[in-house]
Amino acid sequence: VAPDDESGRREELVVTYDLTCAPGEDPRAKALGIALEQTVELPESCVTTEIRQRVVGRLEGVTPLPEGRFRSVIRFDAELAAGDLPQLLNLLFGNISLQSGIRLVDIGWPQSLLDGMPGPRHGIDGLRRACGVSRRRPLLCAALKPLGLSTTELARICHDLASSGVDLIKDDHGLADQRAAPFSERLAACGAAVRRANARTGRSSAYFPNVTAPAGEMDERIERAEAEGCPGILVSPFLVGLDTVRRRARLGGPIVLAHPSLSGGFFHPDHGIAPEVLLGQIFRMIGCDGVIFPNADGRFPFSESTCAAVRDALRGPLGELAPGFPVPGGGIDITRIDHWKRRYGPDTVFLVGGSLYAQPDLAEACSALAAALEGPAD
Amino acid sequence: VAPDDESGRREELVVTYDLTCAPGEDPRAKALGIALEQTVELPESCVTTEIRQRVVGRLEGVTPLPEGRFRSVIRFDAELAAGDLPQLLNLLFGNISLQSGIRLVDIGWPQSLLDGMPGPRHGIDGLRRACGVSRRRPLLCAALKPLGLSTTELARICHDLASSGVDLIKDDHGLADQRAAPFSERLAACGAAVRRANARTGRSSAYFPNVTAPAGEMDERIERAEAEGCPGILVSPFLVGLDTVRRRARLGGPIVLAHPSLSGGFFHPDHGIAPEVLLGQIFRMIGCDGVIFPNADGRFPFSESTCAAVRDALRGPLGELAPGFPVPGGGIDITRIDHWKRRYGPDTVFLVGGSLYAQPDLAEACSALAAALEGPAD
Repeated sequence: VAPDDESGRREELVVTYDLTCAPGEDPRAKALGIALEQTVELPESCVTTEIRQRVVGRLEGVTPLPEGRFRSVIRFDAELAAGDLPQLLNLLFGNISLQSGIRLVDIGWPQSLLDGMPGPRHGIDGLRRACGVSRRRPLLCAALKPLGLSTTELARICHDLASSGVDLIKDDHGLADQRAAPFSERLAACGAAVRRANARTGRSSAYFPNVTAPAGEMDERIERAEAEGCPGILVSPFLVGLDTVRRRARLGGPIVLAHPSLSGGFFHPDHGIAPEVLLGQIFRMIGCDGVIFPNADGRFPFSESTCAAVRDALRGPLGELAPGFPVPGGGIDITRIDHWKRRYGPDTVFLVGGSLYAQPDLAEACSALAAALEGPAD
Repeated sequence: VAPDDESGRREELVVTYDLTCAPGEDPRAKALGIALEQTVELPESCVTTEIRQRVVGRLEGVTPLPEGRFRSVIRFDAELAAGDLPQLLNLLFGNISLQSGIRLVDIGWPQSLLDGMPGPRHGIDGLRRACGVSRRRPLLCAALKPLGLSTTELARICHDLASSGVDLIKDDHGLADQRAAPFSERLAACGAAVRRANARTGRSSAYFPNVTAPAGEMDERIERAEAEGCPGILVSPFLVGLDTVRRRARLGGPIVLAHPSLSGGFFHPDHGIAPEVLLGQIFRMIGCDGVIFPNADGRFPFSESTCAAVRDALRGPLGELAPGFPVPGGGIDITRIDHWKRRYGPDTVFLVGGSLYAQPDLAEACSALAAALEGPAD
């Protein structure tokens, strides 16, 4: 972002909102409304010229899009976010989340803001090292499930997965601290099961326990996971708070694999935040080394172009931040794996769940998928 | 919730989802999909009979609604939430947030789950005491704004508001720790301004600073607010994480006034969580003594019936939890105040912002509103 000599602002957030107007609603007035609502929360007539120039978002322009929509670009003084992620989220979409027909589709980030974010601390290289996969092929991740099994049953499945070429085994994100398989017991049993399998196969499958937990308890679960030798953890940022994840990543610690639970409220086509911004840019900024998202053709309505945009937001340039792994899940099975390999490229973690468990022999299904990932896409 | 002898489940969450089906989509299959997705995340054929009976949500029924929608009721074993708010949110709407046409409209809470939540620690009586308003009339709350003013300018406005009959002055929720008015400086100056005004008027106006802050910093801001003599604070649960607010309320401390920033992603008419469930029941459960929400006829698309439902969810019976204050904001000015008094009743905090600042004389406008709240609605 270039310095803006006219207003004296040095760094700006350049935010693109796509607008869907109600009948009779003027797109320019709607865009100006956003510029006011997200800053001074007052009509323009109630603020001084100085506040208007320095604080109110500056509308760069409104241009028509197909299907009756409009694209608006608003520049906000980066200082309004105060280097503080909760206030950044508030500035970008806080109050306007309560309105309608506003979709945040792109953000031009000021360098200072990116510099203040941890970004992936381990990133693609770190996750490859943890799983012992230095060769540039996609990784295979399987979800440990279902909720309701005992610790012993889950550990047995974990062993089967690790024995069959799965690089990364993650808890299903609904596995918390239920009585059927309490966190500490599950961690110990699954950690041991994976170590036994690795000793036999000579590989380095990794187990990532779910540390999504009540406030104040996540740190302890992370410490236990580290003590158990787990190189990474699974967390759902929208369940624990995005800034809780950012703070952890800044402190260092294990690899962070993020689950998108509860984020889907923002993905309405007319209103919300584009998945590539929220799950791509923002999850990467707060320190997620890999981000799970619904693959096209699965049971969630993400299109292939949305998935490609999330992939690119995670791996493409974003200031000095390290790239993160896209982790598409859903609709990935042996019959389609070559298609997805071509779509996503080698720096991808493929997450499989239902399609594995639907097979008569789980281990055999894993081995077949793992073998498919070893070879070239064609 | 009655014990369920058939399955042996003792306590259940009874969750109502309204379904909007895509062409060709079967409502019963969609409802069964929710029951599976939110628990085992596997097709029914992949789980044992025992897991199906014990863990998968139990579909009570699907009935048609007007406009082509369907209402489904699903019972979940309360144990799946593990007494853990992040996992509770995950169970209620985690993965299905990423789907479409599913709106959570009601929850029958098991007693044990409510018992584990703090609820309002001060509630309606506590907030009345803090503002010195024992008589059963609505309270007047004004937002301190705009973002961008200096500490001195904000403190002057704070003094004017407190001198003119405003019971409760809250920071605009975008006031964080920006250079123009840093948190500590603002807290000290505004706290002092309100004390000066109270000494002159003999009243007990209260100042609630915004403590929405980066993870790990909120507690310190709350302690500073308490040290400054502020009886309460403002926080945006969706910006800091809902469970962060719950944990604080459980620990005790000042009165919690909640702002709905970023929550609006969930309020799409076809998909999301009904405002009365999210801002009403859930915000109350986690310990919010008052909850701000967009009033009908303001600049946000909440209907009068939605506002009434939020009001009732905050004040009506909810286990043994204390009632919280509804705090409607937007569209409230002197010409309509009697209408809103009748609508909301005396146990209400009316939040005014723009309509005050649009008046030629802020103090005069406050005094007129305060006088209108003293009298009966008619």
